[in-house]
Amino acid sequence: MDQVVNLPQGQMPQAWYNIQADLPWPAPPPLHPATHQPIGPELLAPIFPMALIQQEVSQVRWIEIPQEVLDVYALWRPTPLRRAVALEKELGTPARIYYKDESVSPPGSHKPNTAVAQAYYNKMEGVERIATETGAGQWGSALAFGTMLMGLKCTVYMVKVSYEQKPFRKSLMGLWGAEVHASPSNLTEAGRKVLAQDPDCPGSLGIAISEAIEDAVKDEHAKYSLGSVLNHVLMHQTIIGLEAKKQMEMIGEYPDIVTSCIGGGSNMAGISFPFLMDKLTGKKDVQAVAVEPEACPSVTRGPYRYDFGDIAETTPLLKMFTLGHTFIPAKIHAGGLRYHGMAPLICLLCDRNAMTAKAYRQNPVFESALLWARTQGSVPAPETAHTIHLVVEEARRCKRERKEKVILFNYSGHGHFDMAAYDAYLAGKLEDYSLPQEEIDKALKTVPVVG
Amino acid sequence: MDQVVNLPQGQMPQAWYNIQADLPWPAPPPLHPATHQPIGPELLAPIFPMALIQQEVSQVRWIEIPQEVLDVYALWRPTPLRRAVALEKELGTPARIYYKDESVSPPGSHKPNTAVAQAYYNKMEGVERIATETGAGQWGSALAFGTMLMGLKCTVYMVKVSYEQKPFRKSLMGLWGAEVHASPSNLTEAGRKVLAQDPDCPGSLGIAISEAIEDAVKDEHAKYSLGSVLNHVLMHQTIIGLEAKKQMEMIGEYPDIVTSCIGGGSNMAGISFPFLMDKLTGKKDVQAVAVEPEACPSVTRGPYRYDFGDIAETTPLLKMFTLGHTFIPAKIHAGGLRYHGMAPLICLLCDRNAMTAKAYRQNPVFESALLWARTQGSVPAPETAHTIHLVVEEARRCKRERKEKVILFNYSGHGHFDMAAYDAYLAGKLEDYSLPQEEIDKALKTVPVVG
Repeated sequence: MDQVVNLPQGQMPQAWYNIQADLPWPAPPPLHPATHQPIGPELLAPIFPMALIQQEVSQVRWIEIPQEVLDVYALWRPTPLRRAVALEKELGTPARIYYKDESVSPPGSHKPNTAVAQAYYNKMEGVERIATETGAGQWGSALAFGTMLMGLKCTVYMVKVSYEQKPFRKSLMGLWGAEVHASPSNLTEAGRKVLAQDPDCPGSLGIAISEAIEDAVKDEHAKYSLGSVLNHVLMHQTIIGLEAKKQMEMIGEYPDIVTSCIGGGSNMAGISFPFLMDKLTGKKDVQAVAVEPEACPSVTRGPYRYDFGDIAETTPLLKMFTLGHTFIPAKIHAGGLRYHGMAPLICLLCDRNAMTAKAYRQNPVFESALLWARTQGSVPAPETAHTIHLVVEEARRCKRERKEKVILFNYSGHGHFDMAAYDAYLAGKLEDYSLPQEEIDKALKTVPVVG
Repeated sequence: MDQVVNLPQGQMPQAWYNIQADLPWPAPPPLHPATHQPIGPELLAPIFPMALIQQEVSQVRWIEIPQEVLDVYALWRPTPLRRAVALEKELGTPARIYYKDESVSPPGSHKPNTAVAQAYYNKMEGVERIATETGAGQWGSALAFGTMLMGLKCTVYMVKVSYEQKPFRKSLMGLWGAEVHASPSNLTEAGRKVLAQDPDCPGSLGIAISEAIEDAVKDEHAKYSLGSVLNHVLMHQTIIGLEAKKQMEMIGEYPDIVTSCIGGGSNMAGISFPFLMDKLTGKKDVQAVAVEPEACPSVTRGPYRYDFGDIAETTPLLKMFTLGHTFIPAKIHAGGLRYHGMAPLICLLCDRNAMTAKAYRQNPVFESALLWARTQGSVPAPETAHTIHLVVEEARRCKRERKEKVILFNYSGHGHFDMAAYDAYLAGKLEDYSLPQEEIDKALKTVPVVG
């Protein structure tokens, strides 16, 4: 039996799927931070190109992928759909486990799916440089890659704890021509303000976002780019699920469970939205499960409220499950899953029970990652390891309950730049951490009261 | 036009190609180090399983790949054949450039093709542990991977300069359950002897081989394994070229030039031997070009003589282009291409002009690697960068001479664990080095005089 399903390049999807077209409930609009009124495009124009602002609010189901973007995708797409036969055998499960291998992209994750698209639209509107933030470095390296191929400059504010833990992610960005700064930095007012209060601050995505936005706003030739959370970013990732759907069809399968980890939510959106389309339109049912770390459990433990996307309160208010925009997660190794909030579309789906979320601790997550590496052979990113842990738990449940479920997950990235975390785990030195309630309560006090 | 050709898993080759069956010239036999007479299997039996010794001398054209090995190959094989359209465009060349992407294996190189096979045959003969050496770490991680999947233990002696430059290659081996020691180590007589003379010795493959063999010989449950050089190792790699041949056929192409880098010679053998079969049997012509570093130029500057494979003079004498078995290369970053000798089969082909060799300096090699990373997107291993440099030179020649040549090369590995070398290059700090003649002359004095 073949363990891989390759989609011919000529059958690569030509349009992204916009789930907003199929939502049975109105998506709560972004609000102006001062007036608390729904914002218009003019508020976002200084930081995003108009094409992306239009995609952000579009209600059109299919958005055509520009040819130039498809040409770059062709460097690594379509990605393989693989069946994890060795893991199934090791677990003795009747479940059939499929994964979409997004780790084969040059930056090693799903992130370039949107990075290339965003770089393209910025270029088309005459932008010369893009500033962004990055946590674990996956997004920063993806944007460095995307901007390089589109001929733009790139500035990356990298959360300091990752900057220190992952020097080679930084090298990768440099190799692709980007400038990288540890955040909080001395280069922005937002950064300086944080450093004044805490010179040893490990940084957070919220801080890095503030720095990148400030940088972009100050330069008329620059714009800002976000690697997750926003609607258009999630939409660019749907090529993952659209390809997977075609590949599953090629072998006559359809998932009972579709799952991935959530940091900002884009990779989970990418794999699941094309299947949720069938669920929302009443064609087929599927269980969509998102996985987050107990150290940063926005969806499983945060309230569903309007909050800022960044620490400096410069973004519009977004309705989401939030731990509070002043929340700074502990220095956990699963660096990419450290955002205080979550993509509003993921949150809406979770709030309406079209999607569920689970949170895990780090050590069991790494235990499953090792089980994966010692059966399937490849080394997953710590973020992806969260997904694998859920898959292992579900496959074991299938064994207990004697159910032949079909599980599909997004292998969102490889762990080649995360070996320090594996070293720590193997040495028994990986700290574990579940966020105490009082920390959530404290950060939530700064969330604005809306309506 | 599709940039990728995927071979269906069901069409994966079921046998390796043994070029010995088609050689028009007798291959010079390995000689006993003391008597200088051709050795029999009994001399190799303490360190290799009998199945591999038989493959080493076999004259049979096709050797069946065991099902259990095919099952493991299926974790990542067949590997994609890709066309480097973006690079062609950047160079404005009429050449068509194809590459076989061996970097997609879990250890990130072509090495597991033989590691898995060797682990299998050792297991079948009751071996419990395999000891080996590794240079840059690609081979060590591949054998760690292969032994783990076959349920064997693994001990790796890693050349010290790489052990220090590449801590995460070591992590990878540890994650897959192997024990890793910096070589020269205090664990063997061979290692202690070198350390007594030079406590700061950066190590060499020749030293590490001596250590691994000594370790294996001392333990009746252990055998030794070599990641390149020997006939059976080269043969296991032919699955690369056999797949590539099928893939080229699928799109109606045949290479004018087939090329790869040579350290011990196995990856070049893997991509080229199935095409050289056509040349040796008079069916088709192809130009086979091997690439080595000027810092370790065995084929381009060494004499074709019988020499030892290791520094402690424990191996049989092999007829090869050699820099002398006491040669210790400078601490160049292209860590994997540091062997004093070369696979006897590659040497024989070069001596008879069925293959040619070129040597390059490191900095132009990295320049081409960067050109690759900034067009094709992916980051090649420094070893692979040597190949890419030749491909770029040939493609430019095609442009000057207006020739539409078809170039096929082996993208033997990714550079995710070699970012320190890229950092050094980007900082302008990558030392360059062409081996001085007096160093060759000095090391050659220790080569035994045979016949």
